[in-house]
Amino acid sequence: MRGAVIHAPGDIRFETLDAPEILHPTDAIIRTAVTCVCGSDLWPYRGLEPTDGAHPMGHEYVGFVEEVGSEVTAVRPGQFVVGSFATSDNTCANCRNGFQSSCLNREFMSTCQADRVRIPNAQGTLVATDDVPGEEFWPGLLAVSDVMGTGWWAAQAAEVRPGSTAVVVGDGAVGLCAVIAAKEMGAERIIAMSRHEPRQKLAREFGATDIVTERGDEGVARIKDMTGGIGADSVLECVGTAQAMQQALHSARPGGNVGFVGVPHEVAVDGQELFFSHVGLRGGPAPVRRYLPDLIDRVLSRRIDPGKVFDLTLPLDQVAEGYRAMDERRAIKTLLKP
Amino acid sequence: MRGAVIHAPGDIRFETLDAPEILHPTDAIIRTAVTCVCGSDLWPYRGLEPTDGAHPMGHEYVGFVEEVGSEVTAVRPGQFVVGSFATSDNTCANCRNGFQSSCLNREFMSTCQADRVRIPNAQGTLVATDDVPGEEFWPGLLAVSDVMGTGWWAAQAAEVRPGSTAVVVGDGAVGLCAVIAAKEMGAERIIAMSRHEPRQKLAREFGATDIVTERGDEGVARIKDMTGGIGADSVLECVGTAQAMQQALHSARPGGNVGFVGVPHEVAVDGQELFFSHVGLRGGPAPVRRYLPDLIDRVLSRRIDPGKVFDLTLPLDQVAEGYRAMDERRAIKTLLKP
Repeated sequence: MRGAVIHAPGDIRFETLDAPEILHPTDAIIRTAVTCVCGSDLWPYRGLEPTDGAHPMGHEYVGFVEEVGSEVTAVRPGQFVVGSFATSDNTCANCRNGFQSSCLNREFMSTCQADRVRIPNAQGTLVATDDVPGEEFWPGLLAVSDVMGTGWWAAQAAEVRPGSTAVVVGDGAVGLCAVIAAKEMGAERIIAMSRHEPRQKLAREFGATDIVTERGDEGVARIKDMTGGIGADSVLECVGTAQAMQQALHSARPGGNVGFVGVPHEVAVDGQELFFSHVGLRGGPAPVRRYLPDLIDRVLSRRIDPGKVFDLTLPLDQVAEGYRAMDERRAIKTLLKP
Repeated sequence: MRGAVIHAPGDIRFETLDAPEILHPTDAIIRTAVTCVCGSDLWPYRGLEPTDGAHPMGHEYVGFVEEVGSEVTAVRPGQFVVGSFATSDNTCANCRNGFQSSCLNREFMSTCQADRVRIPNAQGTLVATDDVPGEEFWPGLLAVSDVMGTGWWAAQAAEVRPGSTAVVVGDGAVGLCAVIAAKEMGAERIIAMSRHEPRQKLAREFGATDIVTERGDEGVARIKDMTGGIGADSVLECVGTAQAMQQALHSARPGGNVGFVGVPHEVAVDGQELFFSHVGLRGGPAPVRRYLPDLIDRVLSRRIDPGKVFDLTLPLDQVAEGYRAMDERRAIKTLLKP
């Protein structure tokens, strides 16, 4: 089988690899329907996160079950399945509490930019659709496996409520999906912070009522202006940098909430500042598994279309160009077809 | 009038001061019924917080209204009133959102260890009891003005729910009141972290079901042992040190919550660690005003008795000894009688 391997920052190669095999009775093997490049893949690609040795890449997938281990009964060969970037047994205490991405048996997916993928914890991770959905739904379902699930979690962690004002920091695929989530959860006003015209347009299409182009202190000042001087009820931080976190914390009103879903890189939160801000803060890897049945249904019923975040589609063997396009911000998110 | 003045770390004096006057039409003057020394007063007393120049001390009070400004109609001379360490107009957007301790016109009280006190924002800050309560209720009502209100907020910020497991970090007056709050909110298991026998006893009296004497990593390991390996639903951090915050964050389960109510001193939270912990974090100065009617009622109906945290009662003119006793941990909290 063939898949993407990172050798060094900026060096993604499409290579022939050993075909995945069932290693544990809880595994499944899927044939990838579509996969994609994630904003978080750019951290090692840009050399901002250490990469020790060459290794496969990718953690987003939808596909067809090819083989299952002896303990996997929830899905069977031939079915179309959606999973999560974090696998989970869906039975441990953390899973039962709804935090499947902190499953005691969690394994993060990391080999999905390939035509075949081994899924650990398949029983608790994969959700099969009733029928094989038409290809037009594949991008949306693929988004559900990570960016849409993560946007949903951002809105939930930020406690978006009907009628509330939500600010989305970050106009990448997760930020754009966070706009969808805020809208679905009933936010009355959704302010997207973006300075990129095509992304602003998509944000508006997804439900943003306002666009703020300023960043940092100026961006915060604009949010304050727009919210009676006190800040927003909910801020969805979808970047992961120190600047984005500061912007998010300062944009929330006292008693408001920041949901942060970009993996933080060199972010420290000052305890005393957080204290006097009265802002609630919660983040983490999205418990996508909790949302899968609901989000799959929203996509298949055409209620939401997060697949629109893919503005570049390439054959899987051009995965390197997919990274380049995102790195250079020529694309929001690259869909890859095996 | 006479009151406590701090001149330098360790140097509290009881002095004759100018009597307070109505400075603004929103002020009231009260004659202090009882006042007290707060754990947070020990920060400057111990030189851990800078003190520039001599200044009065104290922010907890109950008393009798003596005089009101022309815009104060909610209370009248002769009434017994309970307030908060943070004054609030109770009409601004933050107040309406229930965060009166972030009132846009907030002034923190700081002159309450005295026989007369000026209360800014009196209209929105003071709550009068129906009748003058018997003296046996004064300690409980005084606790409500700060430590009980703060313990309540800790439990609320940590999202204590019926049936949940709550851990209280800190066995000072706030921590002990947090035990009361967790119990009132229906926690099934309340683990107090304390290594001081008299405080353990009071914690049990207030509703603690378990006592953990270990601290730091050992304390966290004990909590994990007691909670099926995953941690507690809610952790109430009532200290404000970096060690206490770490202990709290590490004791909460994924998806659990830490409410932190001790003013943080040199506390920084690592973004990536918080992210992967899945723990929600909220703190701040307690919005005591929001809770006053309810907590006053719980005290006067004898449902709770937070006044028990006062284990030393002194005449106000012995305020310096009141500080010393708390600094040396001979007393949990000192009540002062003018």
